[in-house]
Amino acid sequence: MPWKIDDLDTPSVLIDLDRVEANLRRAQDYADAHGLRLRPHIKTHKIPDLARRQVELGAIGITCQKLGEAEAMADGGIRDILLTFNLLGRAKLQRLVALARRVRLSVTLDNAVVASELDAAMREAGLVLPVLIECDTGGERCGVQTPEEAVELARLVAALKGVRLEGLMTYPARGQTEVTAAWLGEAVAGLKAAGIEPGVVSTGGTPDLYRAHEVTVATEHRPGTYIYHDRDQARASLGLEACAMSILATVVSRPTDGRAILDAGSKTFSSDSLGLDGFGLITEYPQAVLAKFSEEHGHVDCSASNARPRIGERVTIIPNHACAVSNLHDVVYGVRGNRVERVFKVEARGRVQ
Amino acid sequence: MPWKIDDLDTPSVLIDLDRVEANLRRAQDYADAHGLRLRPHIKTHKIPDLARRQVELGAIGITCQKLGEAEAMADGGIRDILLTFNLLGRAKLQRLVALARRVRLSVTLDNAVVASELDAAMREAGLVLPVLIECDTGGERCGVQTPEEAVELARLVAALKGVRLEGLMTYPARGQTEVTAAWLGEAVAGLKAAGIEPGVVSTGGTPDLYRAHEVTVATEHRPGTYIYHDRDQARASLGLEACAMSILATVVSRPTDGRAILDAGSKTFSSDSLGLDGFGLITEYPQAVLAKFSEEHGHVDCSASNARPRIGERVTIIPNHACAVSNLHDVVYGVRGNRVERVFKVEARGRVQ
Repeated sequence: MPWKIDDLDTPSVLIDLDRVEANLRRAQDYADAHGLRLRPHIKTHKIPDLARRQVELGAIGITCQKLGEAEAMADGGIRDILLTFNLLGRAKLQRLVALARRVRLSVTLDNAVVASELDAAMREAGLVLPVLIECDTGGERCGVQTPEEAVELARLVAALKGVRLEGLMTYPARGQTEVTAAWLGEAVAGLKAAGIEPGVVSTGGTPDLYRAHEVTVATEHRPGTYIYHDRDQARASLGLEACAMSILATVVSRPTDGRAILDAGSKTFSSDSLGLDGFGLITEYPQAVLAKFSEEHGHVDCSASNARPRIGERVTIIPNHACAVSNLHDVVYGVRGNRVERVFKVEARGRVQ
Repeated sequence: MPWKIDDLDTPSVLIDLDRVEANLRRAQDYADAHGLRLRPHIKTHKIPDLARRQVELGAIGITCQKLGEAEAMADGGIRDILLTFNLLGRAKLQRLVALARRVRLSVTLDNAVVASELDAAMREAGLVLPVLIECDTGGERCGVQTPEEAVELARLVAALKGVRLEGLMTYPARGQTEVTAAWLGEAVAGLKAAGIEPGVVSTGGTPDLYRAHEVTVATEHRPGTYIYHDRDQARASLGLEACAMSILATVVSRPTDGRAILDAGSKTFSSDSLGLDGFGLITEYPQAVLAKFSEEHGHVDCSASNARPRIGERVTIIPNHACAVSNLHDVVYGVRGNRVERVFKVEARGRVQ
């Protein structure tokens, strides 16, 4: 493909392939150095080619959040998938059985209803599904609330024939590594006291990725955003130099001296601000503020910027939340310098079920 | 299609076809009664079948925000399209020319750069493109800043051969009908004084749709969200009974007595809160609050609700912002009562360019 970035129309999502490679290697090297296994969460990119690259570099498999994502990744050649979601209902369980016949599949659960449904579906299919108990170590989403509840649910799972306890899983609260470590340490001790070998202890998240080894009982980590980074993650670690995703946009209007309007809004970026000032960093005009989105327009306040863009000028913007951007686009462009080297179809986009 | 809603997996987007029909007829009747033409904005649904229904009921054509949306609608049989966006750049202008050969196309602009580019492209193609001057009557997005600037830009356009002045267009500030009316009235007077016949004066928006006739110089209105309504629009008019879109979701976790977790998050709903308390109304549990989204989970605070959902239970949620939901889904389901009558492909979804 002889394209240059200049040949792309706007808005387009650019992925810096060198930065992706550096981000993946950095994390894998870290995990290897600490004896941790890496199981990247593909929610950030949703692209089988990139998932395969993660595995090539040493990841033991991948993590998916939705069954439809896992199916897309299996279609793309991934052979080991952890699905970190409570799965319920006949339609999903039928698909789960079909997927379990194709790949090495494991699933999380946090309650007896899900355990019972999984067990029944797998027994009927003559399969045994590895499951992990989801633990709410402070993230306040899903998960059993205490180490004691984790042990209790593990005992329940251990008594079933269609599922097999593989270990514990948490999506931890950001910046709470000590709390996560204490919670999981207690749960592991409780399991051992109950005669249950915990096996896998899986933690997640990019913000505290490079502290994952401090959770001493952890055996694997599931970072997602680390592949692209974004303006939110740049606050936590590594800075903007690690950001591999950017949005190419055009200034289409300059209604006032202090206002510029881009051809990219919330339907290109999402409305995820993640508490940051502005919705993205305009790399050519770092003092300008991407202050507001309409659905298809970005409102730039350039009153504090000495340099101001002209109508027709193109700018590149590092988004606040890379995962949300991937979820809006059918394709993204893999670039090196000014060359467009790859067009990636975002295969798992929109697989909400 | 003999499906029932119970046969759909979750999350799914449901469109109540009777409410859609009532919403479209109500607006068309209003427009007809006041001698206004209706030119619905399809950004809300992005579905050619629904656009055709809008035209069948009396709309003179449709409005699109992106060129890609307009192409999808032309493919779907729509013959009269207003594109309310400043278009720039060789790639887009080539596509614009191709589209102008297929349908009755008009475009807005708010500056001389865009006027010049459109003019050159159209002259080269041997076409004359009708254009409307975009006016910033208080919405503070694109648009010339004063009625005087509108007249000035209209004069400039009138001197060009590849474009032809069709009129004025605004996306008004919400609840500012008097301001909009005064601004446009002054601009129309200015045009007439300059010997320019304004022709079309196009206003937009659903919140003030039923006050559109108060902008006495307006000849057409471009409502978008009125087809589905949503929790945001319900505040402004008509209430929740007009809301035709809902999300079918499943309770997958009950980590605490006061917290329920749904299998639908910001990648199903978007993060658009639009300043409302909670991200949607759970129709079965109106006292529960959809308090927060993860990407694939909805966090429900049901502590203030006497009735609380059990794991595996399905709920239907009216979203805060219907347009953002459409933009996330490849298909939505047209329902009547418990019957699923149609599967609509959201053809213009993701057409950001």
